[in-house]
Amino acid sequence: GFAHVDHHRPLRNGMAEVIYCEGKTAPQISKIIQKQLKAGCDILATRLAREAYLKLKKNLPSKASYNPEGRVLTIYKSTRPKPVGQILVVTAGTSDIPVAEEAIATAELLGSKVDKLVDVGVAGIHRLLDKVDRLREARVIVVVAGMDGALPSVVGGLVSCPVIGVPTSVGYGASFGGVAALLTMLNSCSTGVGAVNIDNGFGAGCLAHRINVMGAPSTT
Amino acid sequence: GFAHVDHHRPLRNGMAEVIYCEGKTAPQISKIIQKQLKAGCDILATRLAREAYLKLKKNLPSKASYNPEGRVLTIYKSTRPKPVGQILVVTAGTSDIPVAEEAIATAELLGSKVDKLVDVGVAGIHRLLDKVDRLREARVIVVVAGMDGALPSVVGGLVSCPVIGVPTSVGYGASFGGVAALLTMLNSCSTGVGAVNIDNGFGAGCLAHRINVMGAPSTT
Amino acid sequence: GFAHVDHHRPLRNGMAEVIYCEGKTAPQISKIIQKQLKAGCDILATRLAREAYLKLKKNLPSKASYNPEGRVLTIYKSTRPKPVGQILVVTAGTSDIPVAEEAIATAELLGSKVDKLVDVGVAGIHRLLDKVDRLREARVIVVVAGMDGALPSVVGGLVSCPVIGVPTSVGYGASFGGVAALLTMLNSCSTGVGAVNIDNGFGAGCLAHRINVMGAPSTT
Amino acid sequence: GFAHVDHHRPLRNGMAEVIYCEGKTAPQISKIIQKQLKAGCDILATRLAREAYLKLKKNLPSKASYNPEGRVLTIYKSTRPKPVGQILVVTAGTSDIPVAEEAIATAELLGSKVDKLVDVGVAGIHRLLDKVDRLREARVIVVVAGMDGALPSVVGGLVSCPVIGVPTSVGYGASFGGVAALLTMLNSCSTGVGAVNIDNGFGAGCLAHRINVMGAPSTT
Amino acid sequence: GFAHVDHHRPLRNGMAEVIYCEGKTAPQISKIIQKQLKAGCDILATRLAREAYLKLKKNLPSKASYNPEGRVLTIYKSTRPKPVGQILVVTAGTSDIPVAEEAIATAELLGSKVDKLVDVGVAGIHRLLDKVDRLREARVIVVVAGMDGALPSVVGGLVSCPVIGVPTSVGYGASFGGVAALLTMLNSCSTGVGAVNIDNGFGAGCLAHRINVMGAPSTT
Amino acid sequence: GFAHVDHHRPLRNGMAEVIYCEGKTAPQISKIIQKQLKAGCDILATRLAREAYLKLKKNLPSKASYNPEGRVLTIYKSTRPKPVGQILVVTAGTSDIPVAEEAIATAELLGSKVDKLVDVGVAGIHRLLDKVDRLREARVIVVVAGMDGALPSVVGGLVSCPVIGVPTSVGYGASFGGVAALLTMLNSCSTGVGAVNIDNGFGAGCLAHRINVMGAPSTT
Amino acid sequence: GFAHVDHHRPLRNGMAEVIYCEGKTAPQISKIIQKQLKAGCDILATRLAREAYLKLKKNLPSKASYNPEGRVLTIYKSTRPKPVGQILVVTAGTSDIPVAEEAIATAELLGSKVDKLVDVGVAGIHRLLDKVDRLREARVIVVVAGMDGALPSVVGGLVSCPVIGVPTSVGYGASFGGVAALLTMLNSCSTGVGAVNIDNGFGAGCLAHRINVMGAPSTT
Amino acid sequence: GFAHVDHHRPLRNGMAEVIYCEGKTAPQISKIIQKQLKAGCDILATRLAREAYLKLKKNLPSKASYNPEGRVLTIYKSTRPKPVGQILVVTAGTSDIPVAEEAIATAELLGSKVDKLVDVGVAGIHRLLDKVDRLREARVIVVVAGMDGALPSVVGGLVSCPVIGVPTSVGYGASFGGVAALLTMLNSCSTGVGAVNIDNGFGAGCLAHRINVMGAPSTT
Ligand SMILES: Nc1ncnc2c1ncn2[C@@H]1O[C@H](COP(=O)(O)O)[C@@H](O)[C@H]1O
Ligand SMILES: Nc1ncnc2c1ncn2[C@@H]1O[C@H](COP(=O)(O)O)[C@@H](O)[C@H]1O
Ligand SMILES: Nc1ncnc2c1ncn2[C@@H]1O[C@H](COP(=O)(O)O)[C@@H](O)[C@H]1O
Ligand SMILES: Nc1ncnc2c1ncn2[C@@H]1O[C@H](COP(=O)(O)O)[C@@H](O)[C@H]1O
Ligand SMILES: [Mg+2]
Ligand SMILES: [Mg+2]
Ligand SMILES: [Mg+2]
Ligand SMILES: [Mg+2]
Ligand SMILES: [Mg+2]
Ligand SMILES: [Mg+2]
Ligand SMILES: [Mg+2]
Ligand SMILES: [Mg+2]
Repeated sequence: GFAHVDHHRPLRNGMAEVIYCEGKTAPQISKIIQKQLKAGCDILATRLAREAYLKLKKNLPSKASYNPEGRVLTIYKSTRPKPVGQILVVTAGTSDIPVAEEAIATAELLGSKVDKLVDVGVAGIHRLLDKVDRLREARVIVVVAGMDGALPSVVGGLVSCPVIGVPTSVGYGASFGGVAALLTMLNSCSTGVGAVNIDNGFGAGCLAHRINVMGAPSTT
Repeated sequence: GFAHVDHHRPLRNGMAEVIYCEGKTAPQISKIIQKQLKAGCDILATRLAREAYLKLKKNLPSKASYNPEGRVLTIYKSTRPKPVGQILVVTAGTSDIPVAEEAIATAELLGSKVDKLVDVGVAGIHRLLDKVDRLREARVIVVVAGMDGALPSVVGGLVSCPVIGVPTSVGYGASFGGVAALLTMLNSCSTGVGAVNIDNGFGAGCLAHRINVMGAPSTT
Repeated sequence: GFAHVDHHRPLRNGMAEVIYCEGKTAPQISKIIQKQLKAGCDILATRLAREAYLKLKKNLPSKASYNPEGRVLTIYKSTRPKPVGQILVVTAGTSDIPVAEEAIATAELLGSKVDKLVDVGVAGIHRLLDKVDRLREARVIVVVAGMDGALPSVVGGLVSCPVIGVPTSVGYGASFGGVAALLTMLNSCSTGVGAVNIDNGFGAGCLAHRINVMGAPSTT
Repeated sequence: GFAHVDHHRPLRNGMAEVIYCEGKTAPQISKIIQKQLKAGCDILATRLAREAYLKLKKNLPSKASYNPEGRVLTIYKSTRPKPVGQILVVTAGTSDIPVAEEAIATAELLGSKVDKLVDVGVAGIHRLLDKVDRLREARVIVVVAGMDGALPSVVGGLVSCPVIGVPTSVGYGASFGGVAALLTMLNSCSTGVGAVNIDNGFGAGCLAHRINVMGAPSTT
Repeated sequence: GFAHVDHHRPLRNGMAEVIYCEGKTAPQISKIIQKQLKAGCDILATRLAREAYLKLKKNLPSKASYNPEGRVLTIYKSTRPKPVGQILVVTAGTSDIPVAEEAIATAELLGSKVDKLVDVGVAGIHRLLDKVDRLREARVIVVVAGMDGALPSVVGGLVSCPVIGVPTSVGYGASFGGVAALLTMLNSCSTGVGAVNIDNGFGAGCLAHRINVMGAPSTT
Repeated sequence: GFAHVDHHRPLRNGMAEVIYCEGKTAPQISKIIQKQLKAGCDILATRLAREAYLKLKKNLPSKASYNPEGRVLTIYKSTRPKPVGQILVVTAGTSDIPVAEEAIATAELLGSKVDKLVDVGVAGIHRLLDKVDRLREARVIVVVAGMDGALPSVVGGLVSCPVIGVPTSVGYGASFGGVAALLTMLNSCSTGVGAVNIDNGFGAGCLAHRINVMGAPSTT
Repeated sequence: GFAHVDHHRPLRNGMAEVIYCEGKTAPQISKIIQKQLKAGCDILATRLAREAYLKLKKNLPSKASYNPEGRVLTIYKSTRPKPVGQILVVTAGTSDIPVAEEAIATAELLGSKVDKLVDVGVAGIHRLLDKVDRLREARVIVVVAGMDGALPSVVGGLVSCPVIGVPTSVGYGASFGGVAALLTMLNSCSTGVGAVNIDNGFGAGCLAHRINVMGAPSTT
Repeated sequence: GFAHVDHHRPLRNGMAEVIYCEGKTAPQISKIIQKQLKAGCDILATRLAREAYLKLKKNLPSKASYNPEGRVLTIYKSTRPKPVGQILVVTAGTSDIPVAEEAIATAELLGSKVDKLVDVGVAGIHRLLDKVDRLREARVIVVVAGMDGALPSVVGGLVSCPVIGVPTSVGYGASFGGVAALLTMLNSCSTGVGAVNIDNGFGAGCLAHRINVMGAPSTT
């Protein structure tokens, strides 16, 4: 077989192996999905283009659900535990929403409760300041921003929970496909901010979930 | 005055403003320390070269403590709460230890309990595998690595807690001052890995602390 | 002679040729100063290291004044017109002050009135919001910021006057000597923001002055 | 809704939010236009591909006007004040004209009077020198240039008003999509030159307008 | 003629000139194949898109064989010596398989015996550790990995034979088309690791073959 | 202890852990050497500056030998097997010799026989062509070159054994500290060429040794 | 009009303005051609895609000639002087031929005699050494090479005439669209080598012509 | 010996091997000079720091001459032919003069007549336009410029002889050590411009000389 699926991963890392569809053919994706379904896993397939989804559709179970904006396919097992905690996903602009949707789908599949707040970028900072209460209710915040990528720095200064910056490739010219936003986040003058790869909503969703499900610390 | 210290920060972000000493003169650093001491804050000064420390020393309170390897100065107020939780700081090589020390000093000052595990890089992977139990005891792991920066990917695959990668500038040539290690971490094939800036032990310590002190989530 | 001083420049561009001292020897700088003094110009010498200044000092007229933080030397002719307009120079951190001083010295020499506001970076956004009135009084704002370079985006969203971003080389690692801050400014999601080179306080001062001295527009 | 339109922006920044169409679907653009029309704003939509425009067309008011070269759509409210001041937009080559058109449409919508001068690049410097009078009549000059991006340096040396350089992605190979021209402008050996992002005619138009509408300074 | 085929190469370098099809038209490729067939060489054509192959097909001898995944065409002369030695080609993920196939086809054509092991990346390190015996049977190992490119470092630490890292362009954002993986390999903290260009399965196959066919050293 | 020396490495990888001295203090280096001597290993310490060596010297055994050009320290155990095989180390210019010396010391310590050929760069190609016989006697060739890094391509075309390119940081300007030479080698139009990191004589020596000691292949 | 054709250029620079067709529409190109024909100039249009040419064709004079490989259109006036001197255009591979064709068409249009030598790259250096006589007959040599870009260094060492290197975008991965070859040429260890932009056959043709037509120097 | 001096180079390339002193010790340089003197060559040593020169001085023949600005040492044989032709070396600023001096020394040693024109950069274009006659007298022009590197484009448009651009590392921030100027020259919108490496006065001098000594072309 061409794929060496890591079935112990749920035990070890708390989640099944997610299918990254970029560069895979529809039949390849289909075979992996069938294997994982047989193994009784929930399915998350990311970067699944609408065209590829349409080819897969007829062979998918009825409970499969496709989010065209986030380009993610999820297939949940019938009984699911109640979502826990509170992740907030924030975007700077409307163009950043697809990446946010990937993060949301990922964290929800893993069992987290997720809320969102969109188009509150720093060019109109009052839009964010109006929502400080919602920011402070979150256990962990994912901030998705392209172009100048400045939003995580502002959010990081307003809250005391962990902040995960997701740079997006929104922009042109000297945005260099998201590098400008990534560098902004890595150089954040606020503390408590970590970054994931450009457009990596999936990675942000996983990391946010790992944080969100944490129990209380003991004192030594 | 030349510095606009942000005294509300402890309330807002859970920590006082830390003094970044790179590019500041000893007298400038001294003035900021005196101000913060008067305001009753714990002091953390990072990137403090030994020479600058020696100039400051005579004016510091006796409880001041300087870590020359991590180049950090800490001044703790007399009564301190017991450290909580469990952060593990791991390094790939011995050359990465200074950055790890900055992370440890930061997280400890903020109130976290921190443990360390050094020189367990992927060139001798059994050194890490021998310590899987310690990895799994941590609530959050900071992985410090230069050169190929491969260690966070391996750690991320072995645990289910959040992992923070800190690339270091250890290396030469095509390591580009830590860029190679940074890119490795941003492109980690393991999930649950976030990154901070190159050599940013301080930032990793802050983010790890924000995660480590989290209470338990509620189910909705 | 080794330098071809452009004496018509004051007529053409509204300012004399400024002496950029980096990479010039003290005797070379001295000769150029003497030439320009003879030609009756005001003198502005930038990037003048303290050591070079001390070598020049004995041959300078008494009205020469050296700003060690900004590394600028100015020699004003005896009678000077009243400064006009209102430029505001803002910095994100205390480490950005030297570049701000270069901008201030430049714009003042050219005849502008300049005010400053320091250490109001986005990690504590209330420090800036508290000063919105001063921001709105300015005819043009120069915003000096290193690391994430996010401040000009926030300022640009709060005012309707032109904003000039000056990225600084403050930071380390993935700040790439100011490139991160520069890219942030070029990709600003706020409108009305232009950028000059990294650490180019001089260039920002010139451009701000050209804007600040403008008369009122006519309607056609 | 998916977009959080910033309706206070006209009051705060002197202009309504402009619609950036890259990466937005025609229905999304249509919805935002309808919202803004209801709010009584003038409309400017940039980066609107001809195909998307043709889809929108039937639902647009008759006074809508589309510039295919600049890829901008404008809808002006019936009564408009007389345009004020004098912005000059200059291009180095004919290939730079689309970016110039974006700048012109933006500044005109905002209320500025704009003139243009095209194809006067430095390979035939006399073409520019022949027009020095027109350069000197402008209150602010926008210089649009790709490839070597040398024109703003020459213009900056000929005038005393502010100059805004707009690098374009015209070129190939080591022009790196406009980076070569951008760097030239950031390193301009002329004073009084600021830069905006590559191909950012919109940003240049906004900044030029902010400058062009300035009233006269007071002396203190 | 447009190509200057190097017929002495088999004598000098131990292999015929391989046809790199990227950017060549089908007729150009066809002519080169005919020439080499006449000269009695085995044929290896790499980067041959399926479409181009279909155009060539009718004029190819029946023993021609096309591998669509690796995009390689091979035409073996009738009698072939037994393959010698043992090369192991390992991939980190399933997406890296096409590059691995190019390496395998190349080394096999040259006369090497090649085995493969796929999808054993470091996110689930036990998958590799389970196969240490197969790793240790190889004379030379080619490790193909995209994204973080961490696998060669781990392999290099487990074996004593030469390891050739092949970075792939699998990934997105800050993987920069394979640059992240390439840098990881160049900075490998394991010894005994060399690298070839991104996606260069062909180059890895050649180098591995040159190593694999070596006879025993003499002692001096 | 601060270093987690990997004592099983000789068994696993065929060589002891080598001491990389850059960024380590003399006392740190001294402690590691003492540990390894006690463990009965041969010692190789690379990037050891003359100053650090002079501090260590008095505590070193008499059989210690320091190569100032290559900045390597070696301590051989009394009885050594005869060196085997034949590695040839070639340099393009005289400035590349230090990196070559590091490679030679490494391979010799590991047990290989090594020969060298210096200053035969492509600007005077006859210098290389005069030595084709020596090139063809080698089992593996290490080619060390800075500036244009063109030599490995020419060597790769003249021989059938494996070629390891070592780019050096010799050069200035657009050599970017060895990046130009590295890219040349990665893009070599000759087959059979692999590359290691810039200035990485150590890595080249290890890889060349792994190749050089190989026994003869079996046919299957 | 949208183009400001520089009709004095033939007098000033010895050649008419050449039409760069990339990014221009067929009607735009057509208009410029008509203007220049009226002005009595020879026409050279570069980067003219086959499709655009087919649209223009019916309106072109019968003496127009299109080279599809080099993507250049030339229209010569009826009487032409005899070509002078001797330019040699050399390519490393067959894939570099289109760029070479652009150089040849340019230099020939300007009046130079041009010869070519293709596919003589350094992987088989004897192919070049066999042609040393032809290299030495040239007054100026244009060397076109992609991938490692090593050929100009070898040619520069074999001749005493000026050598112009033209890097091409032939290659993949770490060739970075021709940057690797460009850097090789800029860092050539041979003297007498200058470089033009990636794929800039046109620029090389112009420069080679300016050199090729030079008369003899006088002694002072 | 450590250096393999290429004594046939004068015959082959028209010049002796020049000594590049960067990274060579004074004794190494001294040995090479003695060898070349014995071989009867003229000596040119570039990048020779004042300190190294002072160490060499006592062993040099009396006719040795050192230019501290250009950091070049020349030793001419007693009888020299009259310099021929006319090279013009132009600089944009005074800071570019050292690189110009390296070019001048090189071309003069080789036998060319060289003239210079300094500090005529594009910020004051009339300084250049005033000298058009001198520009037009040259057979070849070397233009040395840092920062924006715009001067060669302007010069290229004013003359019909070959122009060689030499970018310098003069500048800071986004000049990236001369990269900005280099890219400007490679993307010159003027024809007839070639470039050499950053700060490579030596290379420009060699290339200019090869061009300057050319005899007249024959017509075919
Ligand atoms: N051509 C353009 N280039 C850069 N920014 C633009 C352009 N057109 C519009 N914008 C900005 O993009 C914002 C909308 O972004 P978004 O929220 O993602 O739709 C507007 O408010 C403008 O400030
Ligand atoms: N080692 C460090 N790395 C990054 N940021 C730091 C470090 N130490 C302190 N800081 C931050 O720098 C801020 C002070 O910057 P400034 O106002 O320029 O003095 C502090 O509030 C911290 O958030
Ligand atoms: N010159 C060198 N270049 C690259 N790596 C080296 C060099 N010398 C030693 N090393 C590696 O560095 C490792 C030690 O790194 P560390 O644990 O940080 O002391 C050794 O095991 C070697 O694999
Ligand atoms: N300033 C310079 N810049 C670039 N190359 C130079 C320079 N000076 C001398 N060279 C070249 O460097 C070669 C000597 O290099 P090496 O063998 O390493 O000593 C000479 O033959 C020259 O071709
Ligand atoms: Mg928006
Ligand atoms: Mg170690
Ligand atoms: Mg501060
Ligand atoms: Mg034009
Ligand atoms: Mg997999
Ligand atoms: Mg040499
Ligand atoms: Mg070929
Ligand atoms: Mg000057």
